[in-house]
Amino acid sequence: MITHTVFFTLKHPSDSTEANQFFDAARELAAIPGVQQFTCLKQISPKNKFDFGLSMVFDTQALYDQYTNHPDHTRFVAQYWTSNVADFMEIDYQSF
Amino acid sequence: MITHTVFFTLKHPSDSTEANQFFDAARELAAIPGVQQFTCLKQISPKNKFDFGLSMVFDTQALYDQYTNHPDHTRFVAQYWTSNVADFMEIDYQSF
Repeated sequence: MITHTVFFTLKHPSDSTEANQFFDAARELAAIPGVQQFTCLKQISPKNKFDFGLSMVFDTQALYDQYTNHPDHTRFVAQYWTSNVADFMEIDYQSF
Repeated sequence: MITHTVFFTLKHPSDSTEANQFFDAARELAAIPGVQQFTCLKQISPKNKFDFGLSMVFDTQALYDQYTNHPDHTRFVAQYWTSNVADFMEIDYQSF
Protein backbone atom coordinates (compact mmCIF):
# COMPACT_ATOMS: atom_id res chain seq x y z
CA MET A 1 0.00 0.00 0.00
CA ILE A 2 1.56 3.28 -1.14
CA THR A 3 0.10 6.70 -0.44
CA HIS A 4 1.02 9.23 -3.12
CA THR A 5 0.59 12.89 -2.22
CA VAL A 6 1.54 16.14 -3.85
CA PHE A 7 1.32 19.55 -2.21
CA PHE A 8 1.32 22.72 -4.28
CA THR A 9 0.51 26.36 -4.84
CA LEU A 10 -1.55 27.59 -7.76
CA LYS A 11 -0.83 30.50 -10.05
CA HIS A 12 -4.44 31.65 -9.70
CA PRO A 13 -6.52 32.65 -6.65
CA SER A 14 -8.23 29.78 -4.81
CA ASP A 15 -11.70 30.96 -5.80
CA SER A 16 -10.88 31.68 -9.45
CA THR A 17 -12.43 29.94 -12.45
CA GLU A 18 -9.00 28.52 -13.27
CA ALA A 19 -8.63 26.97 -9.83
CA ASN A 20 -12.10 25.44 -9.96
CA GLN A 21 -11.44 24.00 -13.41
CA PHE A 22 -8.11 22.63 -12.17
CA PHE A 23 -9.74 20.72 -9.30
CA ASP A 24 -12.62 19.54 -11.50
CA ALA A 25 -10.03 18.08 -13.86
CA ALA A 26 -7.95 16.66 -10.98
CA ARG A 27 -10.94 14.79 -9.58
CA GLU A 28 -11.22 12.86 -12.84
CA LEU A 29 -7.85 11.24 -11.99
CA ALA A 30 -9.81 9.16 -9.47
CA ALA A 31 -11.21 7.13 -12.37
CA ILE A 32 -7.80 5.87 -13.48
CA PRO A 33 -7.48 2.14 -12.66
CA GLY A 34 -5.68 1.46 -9.38
CA VAL A 35 -6.39 4.85 -7.80
CA GLN A 36 -8.03 4.55 -4.37
CA GLN A 37 -9.11 7.16 -1.81
CA PHE A 38 -8.49 10.09 -4.19
CA THR A 39 -8.86 13.30 -2.19
CA CYS A 40 -8.36 17.00 -2.85
CA LEU A 41 -6.73 18.67 0.16
CA LYS A 42 -6.55 22.17 1.56
CA GLN A 43 -3.19 22.60 3.27
CA ILE A 44 -3.72 24.60 6.47
CA SER A 45 -0.39 24.67 8.33
CA PRO A 46 1.36 28.07 8.31
CA LYS A 47 4.67 26.18 8.60
CA ASN A 48 5.05 25.42 4.89
CA LYS A 49 4.41 27.32 1.66
CA PHE A 50 1.78 25.04 0.08
CA ASP A 51 -1.97 25.79 -0.21
CA PHE A 52 -3.36 22.55 -1.63
CA GLY A 53 -2.71 18.86 -2.02
CA LEU A 54 -3.88 15.75 -3.80
CA SER A 55 -3.74 12.36 -2.13
CA MET A 56 -4.36 8.84 -3.42
CA VAL A 57 -3.51 5.27 -2.50
CA PHE A 58 -2.20 2.41 -4.66
CA ASP A 59 -2.04 -1.24 -3.67
CA THR A 60 1.29 -1.77 -5.46
CA GLN A 61 4.13 0.13 -7.10
CA ALA A 62 3.06 -1.42 -10.42
CA LEU A 63 -0.38 0.22 -10.13
CA TYR A 64 1.28 3.51 -9.18
CA ASP A 65 3.53 3.28 -12.26
CA GLN A 66 0.53 2.43 -14.43
CA TYR A 67 -1.22 5.57 -13.13
CA THR A 68 1.84 7.73 -13.79
CA ASN A 69 1.96 6.53 -17.41
CA HIS A 70 -1.80 6.48 -17.99
CA PRO A 71 -2.84 8.82 -20.85
CA ASP A 72 -5.50 10.48 -18.68
CA HIS A 73 -2.77 11.37 -16.16
CA THR A 74 -0.25 12.61 -18.71
CA ARG A 75 -3.03 14.64 -20.37
CA PHE A 76 -3.92 16.21 -17.00
CA VAL A 77 -0.28 17.13 -16.44
CA ALA A 78 0.03 18.68 -19.91
CA GLN A 79 -3.33 20.48 -19.93
CA TYR A 80 -3.78 21.56 -16.32
CA TRP A 81 -0.79 20.89 -14.05
CA THR A 82 1.89 22.76 -15.95
CA SER A 83 -0.25 25.83 -16.62
CA ASN A 84 -1.77 26.12 -13.13
CA VAL A 85 0.81 24.97 -10.59
CA ALA A 86 3.41 27.47 -9.39
CA ASP A 87 5.35 25.22 -6.99
CA PHE A 88 4.97 21.71 -5.65
CA MET A 89 6.47 18.83 -3.70
CA GLU A 90 5.63 15.16 -3.99
CA ILE A 91 5.62 12.98 -0.86
CA ASP A 92 4.97 9.23 -1.04
CA TYR A 93 4.87 6.92 1.93
CA GLN A 94 4.14 3.55 3.44
CA SER A 95 3.23 2.88 7.05
CA PHE A 96 5.46 0.79 9.27
CA MET B 1 -11.29 16.56 10.61
CA ILE B 2 -7.68 17.68 10.40
CA THR B 3 -4.81 15.47 9.32
CA HIS B 4 -1.52 16.53 10.92
CA THR B 5 1.65 15.18 9.30
CA VAL B 6 5.32 15.86 9.73
CA PHE B 7 8.06 14.58 7.42
CA PHE B 8 11.67 14.49 8.55
CA THR B 9 15.18 13.13 8.40
CA LEU B 10 16.98 11.66 11.41
CA LYS B 11 20.50 12.34 12.58
CA HIS B 12 21.06 8.60 13.03
CA PRO B 13 20.87 5.68 10.55
CA SER B 14 17.41 4.17 10.05
CA ASP B 15 18.39 0.89 11.71
CA SER B 16 20.23 2.43 14.66
CA THR B 17 19.28 2.04 18.31
CA GLU B 18 18.60 5.77 18.43
CA ALA B 19 16.16 5.57 15.52
CA ASN B 20 14.32 2.61 17.03
CA GLN B 21 14.05 4.36 20.38
CA PHE B 22 12.78 7.49 18.61
CA PHE B 23 9.94 5.61 16.91
CA ASP B 24 9.10 3.64 20.07
CA ALA B 25 8.70 6.97 21.86
CA ALA B 26 6.78 8.50 18.95
CA ARG B 27 4.23 5.68 18.97
CA GLU B 28 3.32 6.60 22.55
CA LEU B 29 1.93 9.89 21.21
CA ALA B 30 -1.01 7.83 19.94
CA ALA B 31 -2.27 7.61 23.54
CA ILE B 32 -2.73 11.36 23.87
CA PRO B 33 -6.48 12.17 23.95
CA GLY B 34 -7.88 13.22 20.57
CA VAL B 35 -5.19 11.49 18.48
CA GLN B 36 -6.67 9.15 15.85
CA GLN B 37 -5.06 6.99 13.17
CA PHE B 38 -1.52 7.59 14.45
CA THR B 39 0.92 6.13 11.92
CA CYS B 40 4.68 6.04 11.47
CA LEU B 41 5.58 6.52 7.80
CA LYS B 42 8.52 5.68 5.60
CA GLN B 43 8.83 8.36 2.92
CA ILE B 44 9.72 6.66 -0.39
CA SER B 45 9.65 9.35 -3.08
CA PRO B 46 13.08 10.36 -4.41
CA LYS B 47 11.60 13.79 -5.19
CA ASN B 48 12.01 15.22 -1.69
CA LYS B 49 14.65 15.04 1.03
CA PHE B 50 12.65 13.39 3.82
CA ASP B 51 13.01 9.76 4.99
CA PHE B 52 10.19 9.40 7.51
CA GLY B 53 6.87 10.83 8.59
CA LEU B 54 4.29 10.78 11.35
CA SER B 55 0.60 11.15 10.61
CA MET B 56 -2.44 11.56 12.85
CA VAL B 57 -5.99 12.84 12.63
CA PHE B 58 -7.93 15.16 14.94
CA ASP B 59 -11.67 15.79 14.90
CA THR B 60 -11.25 19.48 15.71
CA GLN B 61 -8.65 22.23 15.93
CA ALA B 62 -9.27 22.32 19.69
CA LEU B 63 -8.21 18.66 20.01
CA TYR B 64 -5.16 19.37 17.84
CA ASP B 65 -4.22 22.31 20.08
CA GLN B 66 -4.75 20.17 23.18
CA TYR B 67 -2.35 17.57 21.71
CA THR B 68 0.26 20.23 20.91
CA ASN B 69 0.19 21.46 24.49
CA HIS B 70 -0.13 18.06 26.16
CA PRO B 71 2.80 17.31 28.52
CA ASP B 72 3.44 13.93 26.87
CA HIS B 73 3.87 15.73 23.54
CA THR B 74 6.09 18.51 24.84
CA ARG B 75 8.17 15.88 26.70
CA PHE B 76 8.59 13.88 23.46
CA VAL B 77 9.71 17.04 21.65
CA ALA B 78 12.24 17.88 24.37
CA GLN B 79 13.56 14.35 24.93
CA TYR B 80 13.47 12.83 21.44
CA TRP B 81 12.54 15.24 18.65
CA THR B 82 15.18 17.89 19.16
CA SER B 83 18.04 15.42 19.66
CA ASN B 84 17.12 13.06 16.79
CA VAL B 85 15.58 15.12 13.97
CA ALA B 86 17.92 16.80 11.50
CA ASP B 87 15.32 18.49 9.27
CA PHE B 88 11.54 18.48 9.01
CA MET B 89 8.43 19.97 7.49
CA GLU B 90 4.91 19.95 8.91
CA ILE B 91 1.93 19.61 6.57
CA ASP B 92 -1.66 19.75 7.84
CA TYR B 93 -4.74 19.38 5.70
CA GLN B 94 -8.46 18.95 5.36
CA SER B 95 -10.25 17.32 2.45
CA PHE B 96 -12.61 19.32 0.27
